[in-house]
Amino acid sequence: MAKISIIGAGSAMFSLSLIKDICLTPSLEGSVVSFMDIDEQRLESAYSLCERYAKEANIHLVLEKTTDRRESLSGADFVVLAALVGGHQRLKDGWDIAQKHGYRFGGSLHVMHDEGFWINFDQLRLMESVMLDILEICPDAWYMLVSNPVMAGVTYLQRKYPQAKLAGFCHGSNGVKAVAEVIGLDPNHITYEIPGVNHFIWLTEFRYKGENAFPILDRWIEEKSAAYIENCATCDWLGPKALDLYKKFGVFPIGDTGNPGGGSWPAWHHADQETEHLYKEDPQAWWRDLYFAGGAAGVERIRKVSENTTEAVMDHFPPVHSSEPMIPFIEAIACDVPRVMILNILNDSNYVPGIPLDFQVEIPCYVSGIGVQGIKTKGLPKPLINFALRDRVAPVEIELQAYDSGNLKDLVQLVMMDPWTRSEKQARALLDDILKLPSLAAMRQHFN
Amino acid sequence: MAKISIIGAGSAMFSLSLIKDICLTPSLEGSVVSFMDIDEQRLESAYSLCERYAKEANIHLVLEKTTDRRESLSGADFVVLAALVGGHQRLKDGWDIAQKHGYRFGGSLHVMHDEGFWINFDQLRLMESVMLDILEICPDAWYMLVSNPVMAGVTYLQRKYPQAKLAGFCHGSNGVKAVAEVIGLDPNHITYEIPGVNHFIWLTEFRYKGENAFPILDRWIEEKSAAYIENCATCDWLGPKALDLYKKFGVFPIGDTGNPGGGSWPAWHHADQETEHLYKEDPQAWWRDLYFAGGAAGVERIRKVSENTTEAVMDHFPPVHSSEPMIPFIEAIACDVPRVMILNILNDSNYVPGIPLDFQVEIPCYVSGIGVQGIKTKGLPKPLINFALRDRVAPVEIELQAYDSGNLKDLVQLVMMDPWTRSEKQARALLDDILKLPSLAAMRQHFN
Repeated sequence: MAKISIIGAGSAMFSLSLIKDICLTPSLEGSVVSFMDIDEQRLESAYSLCERYAKEANIHLVLEKTTDRRESLSGADFVVLAALVGGHQRLKDGWDIAQKHGYRFGGSLHVMHDEGFWINFDQLRLMESVMLDILEICPDAWYMLVSNPVMAGVTYLQRKYPQAKLAGFCHGSNGVKAVAEVIGLDPNHITYEIPGVNHFIWLTEFRYKGENAFPILDRWIEEKSAAYIENCATCDWLGPKALDLYKKFGVFPIGDTGNPGGGSWPAWHHADQETEHLYKEDPQAWWRDLYFAGGAAGVERIRKVSENTTEAVMDHFPPVHSSEPMIPFIEAIACDVPRVMILNILNDSNYVPGIPLDFQVEIPCYVSGIGVQGIKTKGLPKPLINFALRDRVAPVEIELQAYDSGNLKDLVQLVMMDPWTRSEKQARALLDDILKLPSLAAMRQHFN
Repeated sequence: MAKISIIGAGSAMFSLSLIKDICLTPSLEGSVVSFMDIDEQRLESAYSLCERYAKEANIHLVLEKTTDRRESLSGADFVVLAALVGGHQRLKDGWDIAQKHGYRFGGSLHVMHDEGFWINFDQLRLMESVMLDILEICPDAWYMLVSNPVMAGVTYLQRKYPQAKLAGFCHGSNGVKAVAEVIGLDPNHITYEIPGVNHFIWLTEFRYKGENAFPILDRWIEEKSAAYIENCATCDWLGPKALDLYKKFGVFPIGDTGNPGGGSWPAWHHADQETEHLYKEDPQAWWRDLYFAGGAAGVERIRKVSENTTEAVMDHFPPVHSSEPMIPFIEAIACDVPRVMILNILNDSNYVPGIPLDFQVEIPCYVSGIGVQGIKTKGLPKPLINFALRDRVAPVEIELQAYDSGNLKDLVQLVMMDPWTRSEKQARALLDDILKLPSLAAMRQHFN
């Protein structure tokens, strides 16, 4: 049986979701799950809740908890990194500063996005320090990057530590099922290919019961999208911005590709309030209401269920698979149950032609006891490869260069790449102000 | 529904096997199967037999027959090339000549093998002329190379016609199931990877119910192989030669890798009669008894069933899937039923590191409505890559150069590469004598 170490297990919502999926995977019964977090109280709370859940499900699991990462890694077969260093407050603080300097949501990968450079810096440091521990303590373990930045993390770590068994996870590609449902197709009968880089993935192949499904999508757009758009929320996966991108590129943006979660690419649709209104976009509200408030509501819900030990956890969180890819991945490898899954790995065999071979791609992989084996995709239309290079690869490369060099000049260049930067002065002013945030002491020192 | 064109359908054994598999694949019911052969009598005979079979199976198929290849290709979705130009006699004639010149079975890819250079020449010409017809008449069709040489054919055609939808087929990898059965494992519970080039594939990953199965193989070798070898036939898949190759390289030869069907690689085990006896090898007998006599017996059996219309064909050829990959391939693509299959395609994304990117490899592929998508393999041990380059890639490259140039000098070089060639004089004498065969007029003209 497998030992799974969850780093950042204090996120009860995340841990419970994993445990639920394990309980729904009979072949993983008997596994050891080690909950690790530096916050003892959150750890205890998530641990107790999950323990109750496994008991209610009548599934035998060995649940452990520790604040000692190295202890958690000892003997691990899978290490899931789910931690976000420093929580959400400094993300919001950084955005407040950036907005004062003229930055907007929209194509801003490293400023007005939850992969802001001041967030990513600590995330990359954490990713790398866990990597080093793994290579020392459990070098055969699979390192599963769930925390962002997946694109930068996979690229950086797999390049620097080619011996590492590493994969990045994102549920964004599940968005294709939501698209199918909206246009009236049973998601169980679609097949598809959605290649790209993380948070920049495009539906290039789409079939329903074996037939090309793009004509069905086109008909829906022609006949029904107007009524749909009338009633849909802002930042909708099938809203006017998504349809415009489809019209422009001939392939459909999936998941966070054009969404706030991926940085609301591109900037064009967010030029000003009027334009955003036209495209029914409101990233500010999305982050506020869906992301932060939604997350807080989840935490509150978890807290209540935790405190109320007279009711079953299962009554509040019924045993339905989360459709997150982590547990199916673990089962495929640990129990040699081969399956094709969408994962984030290095493009080392040109799976998506045009993306550099040493950069991350999000592609279908054959996952089994052998490990993770990339599947060659049909690739992206040339214009999108160019935008991927311009708006994803280039800034991430600069970011990684800055991370390696500790040179402030590189960080300035990174901010200069942001679509809202109009002058070096503006970029430097933003940087100065953000680096003053009290929680960024380590970063200030690195870029001294 | 699909239209499948079988070029060389006069091989009743082959055609019946395909039709049987189609009848066992409900989603292909209603398909059109066009039987094409230049031999009208063989065509008629195979066609009638298959028609009887489909009727008995109560499966609706539209069976057509024609001696006009272009007619058969018209509207085809899949073109299966199964023809062998000139039949077997000139193969035997060539071998008789070669043996007089000192050639032996054993690592002789282009002389003492059914891919002899004088056979391959006409095969490549046929492959290419069918290719050109396909590109003109049914450019969207999948071209399925079943005839040998698959390695040279896939390499040559896909390089020269990159727009072609092409895959090479070989059932050799099924040999892993026979290996599993002999060592006492249920083939339904094994998983494996067997990468390489056609007829040079090696079991590098092997699991039984999720656990590494090599220790089981090792134990079988330790405890039971001696008794097995006592009773096994010559040229056995688990005979002393195979075990010696496993011992030498640490991975197990599968299918025709060390077998007469793949050219009895390498020459070492065939140095002389004594050595062959030691390794329980007798390729001469294998070709005579198993290949030619076995094939003739099959033809005779088919003839009898054809003539006896009072009995059901099905009584003699029960409806059991052949385990040949062609019909599962067609179903996967035509009906968008994704499956992972072992196929022969170009190594264009470095699926087997070390094999040139523009050379054929035999690898697992993800086959679906999208088409054929190679899966990155873990590759072969370095020594085997070197032997693949030396004994497969290099001679095939010379052969293709000769085919392109029409220069006899290149053909001499090809024969010079044969492990049994001791002098240029010997090579030239062999060439001279073989090119005198009456049936090789076209080849003589090409290399004039």
